Formats: sequence, structure tokens, C-alpha cells
Amino acid sequence: MKRVLLAAAAVMLVGGVHAENRVAEERVDLSMTGRIRQEAFTHSQVMPLLTHLTEQIGPRLTNSPAMAQANAWTRSKFNEWGLANVHDEAMLEPFGRGWEFRRASVEMLSPRAFPLHALPKAWTPGTNGPVEGDAFAAKLESKADLEKFKGKLKGKIVFIAEARAYKPGEKADWHRETDETLDAMKSLTVPADQTDEAREEARDKRRKRIEFTPLLNQFLIDEGAVAAVSPSGWDNGILLVSGGGSRKAGESVGVPSLAMSAEHYNNVMRALDRKETVRLRVNVDANFTSDANQPAYNTLAEIPGTGPHRNEVVIIGAHMDSWHAGTGAADNGAGVAVMMEAMRILKAVGAKPDRTIRIALWTGEEQGLLGSADYVSRHFGKFPDPTDPQEKAMPLSLRKVKGTLQPARDYGNVAAYFNLDNGGGKIRGVYAQENMAVAPIFETWLKPFNDVGATIVTQRNTGSTDHVSFDNIGLPGFQFVQDDLDYFTNVHHSDLDVLDHIVPEDLKQASAIVASFAYNAAMRSEKLPRKALSEN
Amino acid sequence: MKRVLLAAAAVMLVGGVHAENRVAEERVDLSMTGRIRQEAFTHSQVMPLLTHLTEQIGPRLTNSPAMAQANAWTRSKFNEWGLANVHDEAMLEPFGRGWEFRRASVEMLSPRAFPLHALPKAWTPGTNGPVEGDAFAAKLESKADLEKFKGKLKGKIVFIAEARAYKPGEKADWHRETDETLDAMKSLTVPADQTDEAREEARDKRRKRIEFTPLLNQFLIDEGAVAAVSPSGWDNGILLVSGGGSRKAGESVGVPSLAMSAEHYNNVMRALDRKETVRLRVNVDANFTSDANQPAYNTLAEIPGTGPHRNEVVIIGAHMDSWHAGTGAADNGAGVAVMMEAMRILKAVGAKPDRTIRIALWTGEEQGLLGSADYVSRHFGKFPDPTDPQEKAMPLSLRKVKGTLQPARDYGNVAAYFNLDNGGGKIRGVYAQENMAVAPIFETWLKPFNDVGATIVTQRNTGSTDHVSFDNIGLPGFQFVQDDLDYFTNVHHSDLDVLDHIVPEDLKQASAIVASFAYNAAMRSEKLPRKALSEN
Repeated sequence: MKRVLLAAAAVMLVGGVHAENRVAEERVDLSMTGRIRQEAFTHSQVMPLLTHLTEQIGPRLTNSPAMAQANAWTRSKFNEWGLANVHDEAMLEPFGRGWEFRRASVEMLSPRAFPLHALPKAWTPGTNGPVEGDAFAAKLESKADLEKFKGKLKGKIVFIAEARAYKPGEKADWHRETDETLDAMKSLTVPADQTDEAREEARDKRRKRIEFTPLLNQFLIDEGAVAAVSPSGWDNGILLVSGGGSRKAGESVGVPSLAMSAEHYNNVMRALDRKETVRLRVNVDANFTSDANQPAYNTLAEIPGTGPHRNEVVIIGAHMDSWHAGTGAADNGAGVAVMMEAMRILKAVGAKPDRTIRIALWTGEEQGLLGSADYVSRHFGKFPDPTDPQEKAMPLSLRKVKGTLQPARDYGNVAAYFNLDNGGGKIRGVYAQENMAVAPIFETWLKPFNDVGATIVTQRNTGSTDHVSFDNIGLPGFQFVQDDLDYFTNVHHSDLDVLDHIVPEDLKQASAIVASFAYNAAMRSEKLPRKALSEN
Repeated sequence: MKRVLLAAAAVMLVGGVHAENRVAEERVDLSMTGRIRQEAFTHSQVMPLLTHLTEQIGPRLTNSPAMAQANAWTRSKFNEWGLANVHDEAMLEPFGRGWEFRRASVEMLSPRAFPLHALPKAWTPGTNGPVEGDAFAAKLESKADLEKFKGKLKGKIVFIAEARAYKPGEKADWHRETDETLDAMKSLTVPADQTDEAREEARDKRRKRIEFTPLLNQFLIDEGAVAAVSPSGWDNGILLVSGGGSRKAGESVGVPSLAMSAEHYNNVMRALDRKETVRLRVNVDANFTSDANQPAYNTLAEIPGTGPHRNEVVIIGAHMDSWHAGTGAADNGAGVAVMMEAMRILKAVGAKPDRTIRIALWTGEEQGLLGSADYVSRHFGKFPDPTDPQEKAMPLSLRKVKGTLQPARDYGNVAAYFNLDNGGGKIRGVYAQENMAVAPIFETWLKPFNDVGATIVTQRNTGSTDHVSFDNIGLPGFQFVQDDLDYFTNVHHSDLDVLDHIVPEDLKQASAIVASFAYNAAMRSEKLPRKALSEN
């Protein structure tokens, strides 16, 4: 025992010198860090976990049967590892219906016969076997467009957007941050004022989209269109596909709708420009898995705290839902596998944290951070819901009045939230979200991982993932800085979001850092400092 | 008349100062060059030509119905433009059978259902409707492999190669040459001796491939395999597909065979590694278009010479056949459209060349420069055919003894051959193929195109396309240096070889240069100098 105590004393890393005087010196247990690194680097389970999640379970559209399988499998792994309080928590507001697809093919039959590369949008109906129709170009983006094409779409397969020219790939698809780019990331641009006009424009755009989508869906049905096709958002034949139709029971789901490779979409559009008759056959086997709206589920589990702060919680999380074109390997199987692995590592090294360490695998992130927002609102606090339904449909960032925070019981008990959701690249640092006081803490925590490439703390904010649900209500929620690899060039929401584009070593590195951050946050004398809450 | 003569005199560009003394000064008619540029840049037809060839006719596998359509359509255009001697010329040796496909789909049915991205290899049979089987991994690359898997493949869909890991795209997919890379291209590495061992190894490898392919085809049939699948040669879901089976009547065509996106191929292979049962459904609608071997056809047309050298010929050419995954836009629709456009331009500007200018649109290039080799051997000359059939099957470069050239009647009448077949990128210069004496001539000819990026003459050889058929027998055949764009990264032989990856301005530039080169070669006092013939 004595030997261990001495060793622990010897390896205490003392930091925090940059922090203001009231902040206690930051200590890192390097002995524990070493055990975490060893477990993460040499006994890693992160790739088997990710493989099971993405290839044996598959892509995990929110409320799909595969997502339910993922909830069940992650619970079983957590139980196997001896975690506590393993459970799914249903979101308060029913998410909608589940949807899944099994096959999809589009064939050009004439003027020449060849297969077109396309996948269905989620929450759009299948075709009930092969259906045929002539392609018809009709940009449908406004009510005026609907008027313009009224009565013209019967039996047509409607190409609802304009052709999009190939954009030459003059930069490498795949890249890591360099010392220079990391250094640049440390600078912050003081944000310009958002004018009322700009905000109103954004609100208006959102409002129009909310209003237009059901009109378009119903219009295509009323017209008797056979199917609708849009171009993929990526070039080079890559299929970027997300949702269409509607997940809400009782709303119009429109006609079978697909995203097609830009190259094939443009080929059809050019033929239509030449006034050729383009005959297509579409066959989509897809279905909604219930008639009624169902809740969506977050999966949670804990390593209970054993110290004086055991009622406080450090949460690590990642969204488990994905889109359906690939297998959701980088978005966000990687985050899920890393968070799971971090919990496994902490158990394997025999961590006995002061605070409770909780893992949260969110649902509905791809539909607007829904799972984490629901969880945070019920457990930690929320801004009052607007009474105006139009206002309620606005995301928090676009609401006119946020109001005054209504903290829930455990608002004071959240020590930290750490999220991973920027693809499969290794961790290069952390976004401090303009929380000045955490910077020296994180710098100290990152020091033992400088040698594996994690070096920077930036005051920059990053958004679009679940730490925002915490940050919104003033809780210390953070997302790591990661190497992009090919996430934002090829992989994001596309059919290339599969295991092949994952770098196993990167996920091992990330697992070690997350486990260490969770442990440090669970062991330090105070919860992480909070920044001032932005209310209005 | 006088004004024109004066003008012509004023614009004569005098070059050739670097050439040896016996070479006459090189003159370029800048007035004609200006007319050519104007026609090419401001009245271009190159994109309509390419669009018709690739999207209205489609990909043009040698001896496919689409290739026959392309022969007919190009003849009709040549007649429309008033070219002479418009005709198809059949290759002496029957090429084989035609083949075409209309649809192809592969679905994973279990353990989870989703569509896999794959296209059939040319000259492999269709499935006659959907067929199902379990995937089975069996690397089949040697006779020993066939022995190893004998009796194990009945009813299987055989994955005949190993999985191939994703190679991160750390360089840009799309690039142009820079001043630096062009400058570097001017240096030549003195070739190392090819050892007898190296040559024998290459011969052996080729021999084994020739011997193994029919064995593999027949083995898969004898075993009762349902289909065979290989991974695409490109990453990122791109399908690089060429031929399989056999085009020769009477030879085994094997079982339905497809190339699958590497990401999907690897997914199946990993499932098989985990001992999962992977059930697939394959549906390929493909057929051979004849039972007997048929000849393949080159298409030819001329602007007859009107001067004292009218019996001599300047040939410009490009192969019209393509692979079938895309539409053969860069390989080599671009070359065909540029060569056609060059002829149209020469007619449009009223060129009255001294020598005859001939356009040759080759067939069978993708199967080994067959169309051009046949044409050259019958019209200009050849090395004697070996009597040993094994030796005859070897390409010229691997034959032990080339023998002594047997010139045909018109061997002496070829003034120059110019080829374009390195994708859709603009011309940056020309490969002189170690023909020292042409360098100063080409430098002079390129001068009026320096301003549009065509600047270098390199002594380097380039191979793998139809100018080799001329160069092999000592005729002055040349291929232009072109910007790569994304030709050698994504497009070559893949489903991305489509119009979207073409840059129209580049083809306009190339059309002007080719027209000008053809005109200069047809007008100069002498035929282009020839280099010493390599015989052994």
C-alpha cells in the first residue's frame, strides 16, 4: 500500500498556474493516467465495440429497430462490465415513428438502360415493388413553384432540384490538423452583433421550411407523382442522404423520395434539357415500423461515485442514432464506441471516483439534439417553453425570448459533460466554449496526452452536437477538437460513413483521453467552473 | 489578295533555332493559327459532340451496339462536315463478341438487409433474373487456390480477392500541372537495363494470367458458383470496373461477375471473418450480342491534301471504345470529341492542306491498342507474327524477338500521328518519345499556344495508348501532355468517367492545338523526322 501511495505522490502533476488566484492548483493523478493509457492502448476493445455497433447492428436511425437493438446491446455491455443504473430513458415527447429500408434501386430504362445510384430518404414511403414513370424536372422550393407545376406531375418521377455542377476536389479529402492549424484554432474572432434583420431572416427561413415541407409532401401525393428525386450533397458518386417525408404520425409522408448521386442526377437533368423522354424504374423497400408516434430512448449507465461528492455527476456522452446511408461509423459510432470504451477502461483500471461518472448515449441527435435536450431539460433545467406553437418550433438559438432558466433538481450537481461527435479522428484538444476558467484546468489535463497529439485548448465555441444542450443552460458541456480526416469532405451523412474510414489508433487515443478527463473531473476538489449564463 | 499575302508574311513565326543545322527553319502560319483559335474558342462544338457521344449514345464497349452507334454517328457527322473517304474499317482478326448490360443490383439480405454497390464486369453473363446465394471468401489467384476450394463453392457467391484497406486521400483528387511540375517533366531518366530475369518474370506473369483466366472461369461454372465478386480498384465507393469472362466465342465466360465498391466488399468480408452467414441476391441483366466472333471497326475520314504531298498523310486519332461503368467521357470521349472538333475546325476555317489529314477513331484500345495496331500493321507495316501461339499472345514489348520490320505500302507516307487519350484535361505540351529532332519543331508549333498553357516538349516516352502502335514501327506518333484533373485518381475506368468531370474550356483549348498541329504537319516542307527504329 505504502509503495502505491508514494508512487501516486511522486506522479502528481501540478498545473493551473495560469488560472486566477482563487482557482486551486490542478492535480492529475499520473499513476491512474498511466493505467488508463495502458488499458486503452494495449487492451483496447474500441474497434470490436464499433464493429458490432455498425456492422452487426447497422445504421441506427432514431426509433428504427436497429436503434432499439443498439439500446439493448449497449445496456447488455454495461451490465457485463458491472456498471450501475443501466437503463433506457424515454424522451418525454414522443419522437415519431420508426422507419427502415432494405433495398433501393433506380434504373434508367430509356433512352438508354443503366442503373442509377440512389438511396431513399428516411421517413419516406417505399414503392411496394417496382414502379415506373417518366423523369420530370420541377424545382419545387416554394408555394409559387407548387402553383407552377400543378397538374403536370401525374405519373412522373419528379427531379425536384436543379442540377449541381461538380466542384473539383482541389484539396485533399483526408487531412489531420498540423501544428499551424492547431495554433490558428486558438485564436478567437470577437463575434459581430447579430442584427435583428439577420435573426428575423433566419427565423423566416426556418418558418418557411417548417411550413413548406408538409405542403410539398401532400402536393406530390395529390398530383399523383410516382417518386421524387434530389441530388446528393456530395460529388464523386457519394450519396449524402438524410430525411424526407415526415416521422410524425398523421402527417403526410409524401411520395417515395430518394437522393441520387450528383453525376447520375445531372445526367438525367441534361437529358430532360434536351427534351428526351427519360423512363425510370424505382424500387424501394422501406416501411414505417409503427402507426403511432413512439418515444425515443437514451441509454444511460454509471460508475457510482464513492466519495463525498457522490451526488455530483460527470457525464460523458455521444449520440447513438445515425443516418442510414452508411453504418454511422464516424457519425457517431466512433463517439459511442469511445465513450463505452472509456467506461470499460475506468472499470478495468479499478477507478473508484469521488463523483459518479455517467455515460449517456443519446437518441435523436440528427433531428436536432433531441435526446440530450430532453434529458437535460428534465434532469437539469430548461428555459420555459413558448406558448406560441410557431415559436416553440424554433430552435433555442432562434427564439425571440429565452426567458428565465428553470433549474431542475440536479442542476447544481453536474460537474462536467464531455461529448465526442466530430468523426473518427483522434483528439487534438478541447473547445472551452468561452469558459475562461476551464482553460488552465484542461491544459493541465491534456499535458499527459500531449505526446499523442492532444495539445490545444481553444476558447472557441463549437456547436451542432449534444454538449450544446448542456451549454445552453449554463452547464459546463464540452466537445473535443478532433482531426477531420475525411469527415467533412466525404463521410458526413453519406454512404461512406462506414468502418473503412475509421482509424483504430485514433479511437484508442480518444478513449484514453475521455477516460482520463472523466476521471479527473470526478476527482477534483470542485466541479468544473461554469461560465455566466446567457439569458434574455 | 495582296493584303492577305502581306498579312501572312507578317505573321510567319520562325523557329527551329535549336534544331541541328540540316533541319529547315520551322514556320507557323499565324494567320491560320488565329483563325483556328477563334473557331475553337468562340464557335466550339466540342461539348455538344462529347455530350452526344457519351450521354445519347452512352459508353462504348468494343463491339457493343453502342460502339456501332458511335461508328455510325461519327461517320454521319464527318459526312455532314464534308470530309472525304468516310468509312469504317474492319479489323483483320475478329475481335470477339459484343456485350451490353442494362441493370445490375446486389442486395445483402442477411444478417441485415441493405443494397450493395456493384456493377458487372464486361463479357460476363447475366443472371437471368434474381439469384441468391451465401457469400463465400475464396481468394482464387492460382491453380493451387482452385484445388484448395474445389467442391466448396456450390451455390455460393464467391468473393474472389482479399479485402483491401482504405487508403487515405492525403493528396487532392483533382490537380493541374504547375510551372514546377511541367519543368520537372522535361527531365529524362536514362533507363536502366532491363535484365533477362525481369523480362522473363514479366513474360511469365503474363503467360500465367493468360493460362489461369479460362481455368478460373470454367472452375466457377463446374463448381456451381452463383456469382463472383471482386473489390473495385478505387476507394470512396467509386466503381472501377473493366472486363472479365471472355469475349471470344467458344471460351468459357464463367459465372456472373461483378466489381463491388471496396467499402461494401470489405463489409461482407468482415462479416465472413466473423463466421456470419451473409445471404446475397444478385440481379444482372447483361447479354452477349452475338454467338460468333465479330470484327471490330475503326472509323476513318479525311480532308484530302491538295498539294504536292497529297499522297502523304497526317493522322489524328483517339480511341472511341470505352469501358462501361461510366460513359467513357474522359476515357476517351474527350479525345474523340477533340479530334472530331479539330477536323470540323479545319473545314470551318477553309484549310486546304498540302498533305491529307486523316482522323482515325480507334476500336479495341482498352483491350490492348487493338484497333490502331491492326490498322498500322496493315497500312504501314509490322514485325513478323511469331509462329508460336504463346509468343504471339505476348504484347510486342514482351516478345523475345521482334524480328525485322515488314513495311507496308504506305510506310513512307506517314508524316505524323497525334493522339489524345489522357483524360479531359487541357494540353500542356507534348511527349517527343525520344525523337530529338522533333523537339524544336514542336516547340515552335506550341509557341502560339503558350498563352493558353501549352508550353513543354519533353523527350519522355509515354505509353498505354494508340500512338504506341505507330511508335513501335518507327513512325512519328505522339501523345500530348495533359492536365490530369481527377483522371488518375477517380475517373479512369470508373463510374465517375462521366460528363460532369469534364472541363469544357480544356477541350476547346485542346481542339485548337490539335487542329493547329495537324495543319502544321500537313503544311511543312518535310514529313516529321523519324527516330531510329528499335529492332532486335
